[in-house]
Amino acid sequence: MRTFNTINETQTWCRDHKRQGKSIGIVPTMGYLHAGHLSLVKESRSQCEITVVSIFVNPIQFGVGEDFEDYPRDLHKDSRLLDEAGADALFAPSIREMYPPGYNSYVEVSGEITEKLCGRSRPGHFRGVTTVVSKLFNICVPDMAFFGQKDAQQAMVIEKMVRELNFPLQIVRVPIVREADGLAMSSRNVYLNPEQRRQALVLNQSLQKAREAIAGGERNAGRVKDLLCHTISTSPEAKIEYAEIYDAASLADVQEIDGSVLVAMAVRFGTTRLIDNLIVEV
Amino acid sequence: MRTFNTINETQTWCRDHKRQGKSIGIVPTMGYLHAGHLSLVKESRSQCEITVVSIFVNPIQFGVGEDFEDYPRDLHKDSRLLDEAGADALFAPSIREMYPPGYNSYVEVSGEITEKLCGRSRPGHFRGVTTVVSKLFNICVPDMAFFGQKDAQQAMVIEKMVRELNFPLQIVRVPIVREADGLAMSSRNVYLNPEQRRQALVLNQSLQKAREAIAGGERNAGRVKDLLCHTISTSPEAKIEYAEIYDAASLADVQEIDGSVLVAMAVRFGTTRLIDNLIVEV
Repeated sequence: MRTFNTINETQTWCRDHKRQGKSIGIVPTMGYLHAGHLSLVKESRSQCEITVVSIFVNPIQFGVGEDFEDYPRDLHKDSRLLDEAGADALFAPSIREMYPPGYNSYVEVSGEITEKLCGRSRPGHFRGVTTVVSKLFNICVPDMAFFGQKDAQQAMVIEKMVRELNFPLQIVRVPIVREADGLAMSSRNVYLNPEQRRQALVLNQSLQKAREAIAGGERNAGRVKDLLCHTISTSPEAKIEYAEIYDAASLADVQEIDGSVLVAMAVRFGTTRLIDNLIVEV
Repeated sequence: MRTFNTINETQTWCRDHKRQGKSIGIVPTMGYLHAGHLSLVKESRSQCEITVVSIFVNPIQFGVGEDFEDYPRDLHKDSRLLDEAGADALFAPSIREMYPPGYNSYVEVSGEITEKLCGRSRPGHFRGVTTVVSKLFNICVPDMAFFGQKDAQQAMVIEKMVRELNFPLQIVRVPIVREADGLAMSSRNVYLNPEQRRQALVLNQSLQKAREAIAGGERNAGRVKDLLCHTISTSPEAKIEYAEIYDAASLADVQEIDGSVLVAMAVRFGTTRLIDNLIVEV
């Protein structure tokens, strides 16, 4: 596996492969890789001839007081995992390489899709995401880009950006990978103490209860939300940031559950913020 | 020359040429073509194997009360001129094709470079420009993009965007083309009545006076600005919107003229707004 730290090397290397007619897949990550990330690499390898993984803890998608400084990092281990997973190149730039002094160019998707859920609780977050992802697309000129369904809203926002700004590539969403006990894999799980780790199971449990209720005929979104919140609240340490049901394509409000809906939540355990979600088709 | 009205056809056609190893040049325009535009086409043809010209009067770069509705259009004549000039493809989309209902993705360069000159007098203008140009870059995947020096600030903003968002292409600035009497070519010149057309010569005359003053040793930017304004004011119909001297790379303020400076102005004659500029190297 090739490792690059500069934009110029990466762009040149990708362009050369593109000129040879190779298809390129990109897997943008913030590193501290787990099985969820590796499933993205696997999916990219199955669909593209060349797989580039980026590792960059993107400062502009973190708000003031968020965990940018503390975000877990282990580039050495990540590099070994990617090599074993068969990635062709790792792009791991510095902050200064991505945002040199005087940097002032941003890509933004506005409207409902970035104003709800994580957009409400993390102002500016998605502008940081769409900006860095646009840069990565321009650097790696991929044919396909792979994102985890765990960050469902992020995937929706990026899909909208790609469609509206006409990026010549396809976004592929890859399903959530969970631990054996059901907790969605996240680099942030490492922050949890053993008691929080145990209590964090209520996220997936509440999603499963919502799924069962809808499967059993419940169509009232308010009642399903109450069920979510009630289930999460059985964990004494859980502080709900949001637990919502929206239209899975637009994030429009939903009263009666119909079509494809996104059941999504963000919950804090101490200072650790976890998200999880489920798409339910009716 | 091929003519396309849809993004999909244009993107497919450009991608096919790219796969054949052809270099692509793009000339983004708002149509109503004059010799200035045709010099861009000529420059693209001399540097790239394929030249795509876009004609799109971009509504989101016009402010409320500006001349979007009245902007001159003649697609039939433009098409003939481009065919004669040897363009390979014309991309002329509808507004709905570029901005379908619910459109919400924007590219923005913030800071001094978009806050001065036309950025101050036309709020939101450059966000409209950088958004549409990003779309055109993603649609046509050009190796080079050609812009006129007449819109000096636009070229600077686009260069900064390309550099900072890492678009894999090169911006080429092409010199201003002037009428025999010195008026910079502009699609908006057609709005001028004969008296305004005559008086509009003060723009280029004032730039030449500024150039002579600086060549003669004047280094005080304030005094050169006074000279500009005084010269423009000899035309009774001229209403100065701005007449400024800034650093030509950053648009930073300049007291003492040194290095490369941009002398730029926007002046109204009746309802017609004209711009002109000159870069002076000291």
